Amino acid sequence: MTDSASSPSAPHAFAQQLRDALGTDIVATSAAEIAPWLTDWRGIYHGDAQAVVRPRTVEQVAHCLRLCSAAGVPVVPRGGNTGLCGGATPEKRNDAHPLGVVLCLDRMNAVRQVDTTSNVLIAEAGCILADLQQAAENANRLLPLSLAAEGSCQLGGNLSTNAGGVNVVRYGMTRELVLGIEAVLPSGEIFEGLRTLRKDNTGYDLKQLLIGAEGTLGIITAASLRLFPRNGVRTVVLAAVDSPQQALELYALVFEQCGQRVQAFEYFTQECVELVLRHVDGLRLPFADAHPGYVLLELADTVDEAALNALVETVIGAALEAALCSDAVVSTTLAQLESMWRLREEISEAQKMDGPHLKHDISVPIEALPAFMESARERVAAALPGARLFVFGHFGDGNLHYNVSRPAGTPADFFARDAQAEHAVTDAVLDEVARCHGSISAEHGIGQLKRHHFQQFKSPLERRLMADIKRVFDPAGIMNPGKLL
Amino acid sequence: MTDSASSPSAPHAFAQQLRDALGTDIVATSAAEIAPWLTDWRGIYHGDAQAVVRPRTVEQVAHCLRLCSAAGVPVVPRGGNTGLCGGATPEKRNDAHPLGVVLCLDRMNAVRQVDTTSNVLIAEAGCILADLQQAAENANRLLPLSLAAEGSCQLGGNLSTNAGGVNVVRYGMTRELVLGIEAVLPSGEIFEGLRTLRKDNTGYDLKQLLIGAEGTLGIITAASLRLFPRNGVRTVVLAAVDSPQQALELYALVFEQCGQRVQAFEYFTQECVELVLRHVDGLRLPFADAHPGYVLLELADTVDEAALNALVETVIGAALEAALCSDAVVSTTLAQLESMWRLREEISEAQKMDGPHLKHDISVPIEALPAFMESARERVAAALPGARLFVFGHFGDGNLHYNVSRPAGTPADFFARDAQAEHAVTDAVLDEVARCHGSISAEHGIGQLKRHHFQQFKSPLERRLMADIKRVFDPAGIMNPGKLL
Repeated sequence: MTDSASSPSAPHAFAQQLRDALGTDIVATSAAEIAPWLTDWRGIYHGDAQAVVRPRTVEQVAHCLRLCSAAGVPVVPRGGNTGLCGGATPEKRNDAHPLGVVLCLDRMNAVRQVDTTSNVLIAEAGCILADLQQAAENANRLLPLSLAAEGSCQLGGNLSTNAGGVNVVRYGMTRELVLGIEAVLPSGEIFEGLRTLRKDNTGYDLKQLLIGAEGTLGIITAASLRLFPRNGVRTVVLAAVDSPQQALELYALVFEQCGQRVQAFEYFTQECVELVLRHVDGLRLPFADAHPGYVLLELADTVDEAALNALVETVIGAALEAALCSDAVVSTTLAQLESMWRLREEISEAQKMDGPHLKHDISVPIEALPAFMESARERVAAALPGARLFVFGHFGDGNLHYNVSRPAGTPADFFARDAQAEHAVTDAVLDEVARCHGSISAEHGIGQLKRHHFQQFKSPLERRLMADIKRVFDPAGIMNPGKLL
Repeated sequence: MTDSASSPSAPHAFAQQLRDALGTDIVATSAAEIAPWLTDWRGIYHGDAQAVVRPRTVEQVAHCLRLCSAAGVPVVPRGGNTGLCGGATPEKRNDAHPLGVVLCLDRMNAVRQVDTTSNVLIAEAGCILADLQQAAENANRLLPLSLAAEGSCQLGGNLSTNAGGVNVVRYGMTRELVLGIEAVLPSGEIFEGLRTLRKDNTGYDLKQLLIGAEGTLGIITAASLRLFPRNGVRTVVLAAVDSPQQALELYALVFEQCGQRVQAFEYFTQECVELVLRHVDGLRLPFADAHPGYVLLELADTVDEAALNALVETVIGAALEAALCSDAVVSTTLAQLESMWRLREEISEAQKMDGPHLKHDISVPIEALPAFMESARERVAAALPGARLFVFGHFGDGNLHYNVSRPAGTPADFFARDAQAEHAVTDAVLDEVARCHGSISAEHGIGQLKRHHFQQFKSPLERRLMADIKRVFDPAGIMNPGKLL
C-alpha cells in the first residue's frame, strides 16, 4: 500500500479497513482525532500515524494486529504516555514503512480479580497504576509498585518498561511482581499466560521477554500481579551525610539490622535541597546546618509501631555513634514524614523550574557509587566547566538520577544551542557508568532516546540475540519500529 | 562422523580430538572412566556418551562447545546430578545424533566474590549449594536458596532448573535471586552477563531464558546472586488443622500479620506423620491427638527475639480463638524447632523406605488447594481403588508433593508391573492440576520424565515460541537433546 495515494482529508485505505473491521468507535482516522496521540507528554517527540485504535477487548487487539500484520503496517502501543524515552510515540512518516497506527490500551481498564487468598491482582493493561494501588488497599493488601507518574501511568506501560520506582529496594522491579501476562503477538495470536503460580518450572519463562520489551515483541493486555501484606506502620528518617561513602556504610548497617523493613533508601545532595527550597514553598531542611548529602530512609512493617520505633532509635543511635551519619531526624508525625519525603520528591519539579537540563537515569553496583560520583564529577567538570550537578536517586538500588544543568549565567536553551556540550557531558557520564559496570538506563528503558547509546554500550552478542528473538515474535517487524533495537 | 567406525576400546575419533585439544586431565574417554557419569542418582535413567569433559575454566567450556558445534555432537551439562527428571543424564545411543559428551561443571567451583556492600555473591556453576550458603553466612549474610539436596546439588543445576525449595514463600525461586549470569552458548561464544545491578532496563532480559532452560540453550558457568540480611532470630510453630481450607485461612492471617517474616509455610497430612513415625526413630508428634493435617510455620527476623516471640504468641492466639487451627505448639528450644522440622523433612525418606511410589510435583493457585485436594483424592480413588496418598509440601506457594503409593498388601513393584495403573493415577492427578490452572512441574522441571506431559499440557503457541527460541541459541540442536522440548 502507498500512503501517498491518499488525500490529506480522506482516511488511508488501510485505516478505513481497520475502521470497517473494528468500528468507528474504536478506530479514529481524522487528523484532528489522531493529533493528541502523536506526541509524548514532555512534547519532545513527535510522530505520525494513519489511525488511532482504542480497543475494549483482547479480541479487538488481536483483530487489529492480524490486519496490521497482513498489511505490514507498524503498530505503536501506548499506555499512559508518561515515558521519558519516546517509546510510545510513533516515528515520523518515512519511506521505510507504511504509516503506522497507535494502539491505545486506555479502554482496557478492568480490574478482573483481587484475590486475597492467593494474593493476586489481575488487571488489564489500561488500568492507571494508582487505581490498582487503591484496589489492593481496599482489599487490605499492598501493590508495592510506586513511582512519580502513578497517577497517570498505565499498567501495560509499567510492564513494557519494567518500571522501577522508590520501593524497588524492598520489592524489586515490576518484573518481580508479575506472576503472569496475557499478550497479543503481532500475528494476532493471544498468549494466554495469566498464571497466578509462584512455582511453575515448565520450560522457558516467556513472559520475561515481553516484560521490558517496550512493545517491540507484542502487546501486553493484562497481567496478574503479586500482592503483599499492607504495612500498618511506617517511619521515616532523614540523615545528613558527609559523603556517598558514609551513606554506603549507613546502608550496610540498616540492611543488616532492619532487613526487609527497608522500604526506601534515597539519597540527594545539598545542591538538590537548595534547588527545592528555592523553587518550592513551605519546605525546610530539618537541620541547623547544611551537609553535603542526605539519606531518606523509610522503614515499614505489618504491625507493632512501638517495636518499629524502638528499632529505628537503636539503629540511628548506633549510626550516630559509629559516625555513619552526621545528624538525623526521625519522623514523629505523618505531616513530618510527608514533608521529609517532599524534600526528595520535589527535586524533579524544582529542576523543571530551573530550566532544561540533561537527565541521566543510570545505575552502578552500589559499592561503586562513591567512586562513580567522584570520577563522574571530574569528567563532567572537564567536559563542561561550570556545569551544575543535581544528583539524587534510589541509592539502595545503585540507581542515580545524575542530572546536569547548564553553567550559571548561561541562557536556558544552552544545551539546545550547543549539541557538542550536551554530547560531551553525556558521553562523560555514560563512559564512567560503563567503566563501573553499570547500566545506561536503570529504570526508564531505551525507547528512541537511548538507541544510539544502546548500540554503543550493549555487547554485539546480546544485540544479535535480541534481534533474533525479535524476529521470532515479530517476523514482519511491525511492532514499535524505531524503538529499543 | 560415524560412531560405528570406532572399536569398543579405542576412543571415538571426536573424543580423541577433544582430548587433544583440552588435555587428558579434562577429557575422559574410556568406558570405565565414563560409566559413573551416565546415570542419575536414583538409578532410573541410563544413557551413553563418548567422552566426559570436566573443564576448569570458562574458556575450556567454550573450546569444548566450539568443537562439539562444528562436529554436531550433543552436549549434556551436568551439575550435582540431584535432579529427579533425568535432565542431566545423556540419552541412550541412537541414530538421531552422534554419541554425545557429558560436560561436568564440578571443577568450576570457585567463589569469585562475596560483596557485603552490594550484597552480591559471585560463584561458579560447580559450587555446591551448601558451600555457598556457608560462604554467605561467614560474611554475615544469607543466601536464602535452600532445598533437600543442598549438600550435593550445584549452583549451575539450581539455575538451570530454577530450583525452588522451602523458602520460596519468602525469597522467591532461584530466578528471583539471580542478578547476572555468565554462560557459554553452543557456538562457543561467551555470554558475559555477570551483572550485579538491581535495576537495568536495557533490552530483553536474556538471562531469564537461560535460567530454567535445563541446559537446552547453553551452559551457565557462573552467576551473581543476591544476598540478604541474616536472620538472627527464628521460631517455628506446628499447628494442627482439620482441613486444607483451615490451613488456607490460617495462612491469610499469618500473611497479613507477619508479613515478610514468613520463612516457610509447610503442610503435611496425618498419613505422612504416621509414615514418618513408623520409619524414623526418635520423633514424636507434639499433640495428644492425631489431626487430619499439620502446618509448619517458620518466622524469622534480623533482630529482637522478644518481639518475634510476642508476635507469634499474638498471631497463634488469634488463630486458635478464630478456629483457624485446632491446636498449636511454638518451639521454645532449638532442639524442639529442629525436631518439628524433621517431622516434615523426613517424609521423603520414610516414603523411600515404604517402597516405590508415584511422585507428582505440582502447584495450583493457593486458593484452589482445598478444592484440588478433594477432587484429586476422588479421581485417584476411582483410578486405583486402595491407592494411598501422601500429600505434603510448600503450601504457602501452592506447591504440593502429591505422592501416591500402591494399595496396602500389593507387592513393592506394583506400579512397575502395572503401567496402566501408573498412567491412570498420574493422568488423574495432572488432569485435576490442569483443571485448577496449575503446573505439572512446580519445581523439578521437565527433563526426560515429563516431556510427554509437557507436550500434552503446554499450549501449542508456547511450545512453538520455545522451539523457535531454542533455534536462536542452538541452531544445530546440540544442547541436551531429548530434554524439555
